[in-house]
Amino acid sequence: MQERFIGKTITYDGRQLSSHWAYRNFGLQGDSIISFRGPCRVELTEMVDLADVLEHAPIFSTDMLHFIVEHFDLDLERTIIRQRLLIATLKDVIVQKTGAQLRRAGDDLFLGQRKLSVSIATLTPVSTMIHTGVNVSSKDTPVPACGLADLGLPDEEVEDVARDLCRAYVREYQEIKLARCKVRGVN
Amino acid sequence: MQERFIGKTITYDGRQLSSHWAYRNFGLQGDSIISFRGPCRVELTEMVDLADVLEHAPIFSTDMLHFIVEHFDLDLERTIIRQRLLIATLKDVIVQKTGAQLRRAGDDLFLGQRKLSVSIATLTPVSTMIHTGVNVSSKDTPVPACGLADLGLPDEEVEDVARDLCRAYVREYQEIKLARCKVRGVN
Amino acid sequence: MQERFIGKTITYDGRQLSSHWAYRNFGLQGDSIISFRGPCRVELTEMVDLADVLEHAPIFSTDMLHFIVEHFDLDLERTIIRQRLLIATLKDVIVQKTGAQLRRAGDDLFLGQRKLSVSIATLTPVSTMIHTGVNVSSKDTPVPACGLADLGLPDEEVEDVARDLCRAYVREYQEIKLARCKVRGVN
Amino acid sequence: MQERFIGKTITYDGRQLSSHWAYRNFGLQGDSIISFRGPCRVELTEMVDLADVLEHAPIFSTDMLHFIVEHFDLDLERTIIRQRLLIATLKDVIVQKTGAQLRRAGDDLFLGQRKLSVSIATLTPVSTMIHTGVNVSSKDTPVPACGLADLGLPDEEVEDVARDLCRAYVREYQEIKLARCKVRGVN
Amino acid sequence: MQERFIGKTITYDGRQLSSHWAYRNFGLQGDSIISFRGPCRVELTEMVDLADVLEHAPIFSTDMLHFIVEHFDLDLERTIIRQRLLIATLKDVIVQKTGAQLRRAGDDLFLGQRKLSVSIATLTPVSTMIHTGVNVSSKDTPVPACGLADLGLPDEEVEDVARDLCRAYVREYQEIKLARCKVRGVN
Amino acid sequence: MQERFIGKTITYDGRQLSSHWAYRNFGLQGDSIISFRGPCRVELTEMVDLADVLEHAPIFSTDMLHFIVEHFDLDLERTIIRQRLLIATLKDVIVQKTGAQLRRAGDDLFLGQRKLSVSIATLTPVSTMIHTGVNVSSKDTPVPACGLADLGLPDEEVEDVARDLCRAYVREYQEIKLARCKVRGVN
Repeated sequence: MQERFIGKTITYDGRQLSSHWAYRNFGLQGDSIISFRGPCRVELTEMVDLADVLEHAPIFSTDMLHFIVEHFDLDLERTIIRQRLLIATLKDVIVQKTGAQLRRAGDDLFLGQRKLSVSIATLTPVSTMIHTGVNVSSKDTPVPACGLADLGLPDEEVEDVARDLCRAYVREYQEIKLARCKVRGVN
Repeated sequence: MQERFIGKTITYDGRQLSSHWAYRNFGLQGDSIISFRGPCRVELTEMVDLADVLEHAPIFSTDMLHFIVEHFDLDLERTIIRQRLLIATLKDVIVQKTGAQLRRAGDDLFLGQRKLSVSIATLTPVSTMIHTGVNVSSKDTPVPACGLADLGLPDEEVEDVARDLCRAYVREYQEIKLARCKVRGVN
Repeated sequence: MQERFIGKTITYDGRQLSSHWAYRNFGLQGDSIISFRGPCRVELTEMVDLADVLEHAPIFSTDMLHFIVEHFDLDLERTIIRQRLLIATLKDVIVQKTGAQLRRAGDDLFLGQRKLSVSIATLTPVSTMIHTGVNVSSKDTPVPACGLADLGLPDEEVEDVARDLCRAYVREYQEIKLARCKVRGVN
Repeated sequence: MQERFIGKTITYDGRQLSSHWAYRNFGLQGDSIISFRGPCRVELTEMVDLADVLEHAPIFSTDMLHFIVEHFDLDLERTIIRQRLLIATLKDVIVQKTGAQLRRAGDDLFLGQRKLSVSIATLTPVSTMIHTGVNVSSKDTPVPACGLADLGLPDEEVEDVARDLCRAYVREYQEIKLARCKVRGVN
Repeated sequence: MQERFIGKTITYDGRQLSSHWAYRNFGLQGDSIISFRGPCRVELTEMVDLADVLEHAPIFSTDMLHFIVEHFDLDLERTIIRQRLLIATLKDVIVQKTGAQLRRAGDDLFLGQRKLSVSIATLTPVSTMIHTGVNVSSKDTPVPACGLADLGLPDEEVEDVARDLCRAYVREYQEIKLARCKVRGVN
Repeated sequence: MQERFIGKTITYDGRQLSSHWAYRNFGLQGDSIISFRGPCRVELTEMVDLADVLEHAPIFSTDMLHFIVEHFDLDLERTIIRQRLLIATLKDVIVQKTGAQLRRAGDDLFLGQRKLSVSIATLTPVSTMIHTGVNVSSKDTPVPACGLADLGLPDEEVEDVARDLCRAYVREYQEIKLARCKVRGVN
């Protein structure tokens, strides 16, 4: 599994959640986690979470840290569990950097009642994918929100959160693959 | 998925990690998480982690809080990811109760360099299973260890950790099943 | 698994056989069986059975009882077996109501040589689905057909067939899930 | 898939439910359904249904028609659905022969409250298997039971039930395989 | 599994790599391998190999022997291994006919540095598919190439290569299915 | 995937075909291919090929080059296809070294009617495994056989065959994993 932080600003509009995005744009072939920073603006027609579509709940943020994960298997339940583990790890990374008392509820992070992140996992014809976005700024968000800046994280350290999470996720992925291969079966 | 805290003391010796243990002993049919408290003493012949067997690393504790999880599918990688998520959730439960600065490294919890927990996931002929044990006492453990008592948790609240984790795991399991059913595929 | 009879008339035109139809229209999230009554008119471009497409065999009925089943896994063979079991159960329900001597041949029901039902099972990007339609009226059908009315079922009891089948299918689905969890493996 | 009726009397004692039984004893390689007639006597230690073990419910009959099915895949849920379909087909075969008003409840057949059959499905290390036994005689059975003889089936036609079911099951198996290959996916 | 050589010239333009192509055009239902002869001309928009798309590597040949394989399961890794085995078998067939010293490198055949074949394997919504094309003529190919004619194969024997490979692939497919059913599991 | 040639003589007696053999004995964790040289003597009780057991066909050779492959998934059909590809690659390696006109028939290699190799693939509770043995000497074999020595391979080059095959198999395994991740789906 490969990881990469993309230095330039990219607006997440949902089209990044499509198969081989990492390969077609950055040459990363195979399972990968990519991070970049930029606004978030997903039109209803691009939304994959039907619960949000049914509630006409827009996804919008002026400045977010984004993560795009792709796993080349077709087991959506497995990737949803991976997504939860990714969010739990993201929480650890942010807590370590800021000391903030964050709470994970499923695939969301909160500071008190204020929402710090959005996330979705889905299927493509050839893979499963995760998008997770964590607010840098909480300005103009559609729900009571909170951003890394509100937690006191200096702007120049936002990228460190990205790099730490990518590294941690890849390391855990490799440990999981090895853990699969060290246990005998039981009755 | 069902959950149960068993009030009586049970020694974990590895034989609990066998299929239908919850059903045969407590009548819980289907996916389940069971918790109980008691010593931990696993002989080499019962150990399922071959890395431990190869290193002749004994598993021993005088007083632990145990969790036995069974999922009736045969996807070991999926259950190893579930195991990591279980440990991340256990960390959240203990941190909330004690305020301790725990760290998760794969399927282990640490306070500094002292180990708080053991865990393994494996296959049976009909299911996958997880055992997780968290020290209550750190007396006589074979490696530098730490227990819930060392974190200042009153003895009468140990059971609360068990109940909180079981409830949280079952709730998340159900959310994951539903999350599987609310996303459209993408290209 | 959830079930629902929809009281209003809906024309089945093939577009109901698309993922999350129950969720998007009736708020049922997860595996479900939905029933409704209405005409059946499927254009060649909407047909999923290529055997019918190749034979230019139209699907048409002025009045049918419809069932739409969705299972959120991707195992089409498994869902085709479920479809056969659904038809066998539908036969039992109709026989119990009418005493008619029906015969199941694969995914079809017959009275003598007259066809009572149509059915198809297929894949969506995120699930597998079944459509089954049973004639209420046999007027104007493209092949020698038979309807529930021809079997002597009073019009006000058509809905009972729908409710009985939905209930029976959900109950059996739950029993199957439990049966999966009560057997030890053998050699 | 192959089928065979074995003309000699064989006592079903549970050991027939083991992988490659058809291949090792009758040279049938691959998926198969085998039928034979004989007593049924399963000791607790050989029983695979833990619900029966927990209830100390013996399985005993002096004269039964047995079916042993083996499918070389490892999907137990799929084979449990196949088992229900097998029982539904068995019901059709017996009804056609005897005119009796049988009722299927899951994997059991009843005449009123009297039980006609027993069945179990389970996993081997390389396959899934089904055993179904239908009483010929209801003498000395441990629960209120009913047999093919009680339904008026002449003894020389018992074998016809076996042959009819084997043929019907193999035919449906082949149709299911083909049905898998004739549908386009939908959205 | 069925096989067929189609006697008329067909241009491979990528659209043949779509589900049920064999069924819709030649009535072959289920797993199949079809062969035909004709030019090869795949536009970038039809190409499924993103590595070729990223490198703008055209696929072109004036005269090729083509093979279209469809397997009705969704395991792409399995079908990629099948593809390699198909190429290894194709090499054996050509070597036997021509005595040429061919070399297989992954899914390509070479004579020295000259490329003899192209191949790709991918997923459809209901199946996995393979296309393999082997040059008859090496005229006007975009890379240094070699054709069956260059190896000294008389034009009237090109079809024999097709028939031999189809037969060998179907035979091996059936042997693999049977081999699955003759081994006991080990510890 | 890891590979290793073990320099010391090991007798293959069937017990090497058990899960984690490479890990327990040589510390190789995860998918692996191991090669060694030594006699082959498999008692009927250790044989996994029931066809051989039924025919009381002994497996015996005084000097063989052995390969033990382990893949940590549970898809036996996939591993049987891998086995055929391994044999096809072994043929290429031997042909390149010796120029002999070998023929692959399924999982066997032949020189004319003389058998050069034995092979089997099976399931463990946690993985799938392959054993392939190729005769060095053809002395005292139970069937008309042929060995690498008979093909003129100098004794000191036998190990090269082992190393070449291990390297080629690992390289192809990695290419297959990558090939899985470079194709878009089609309709």
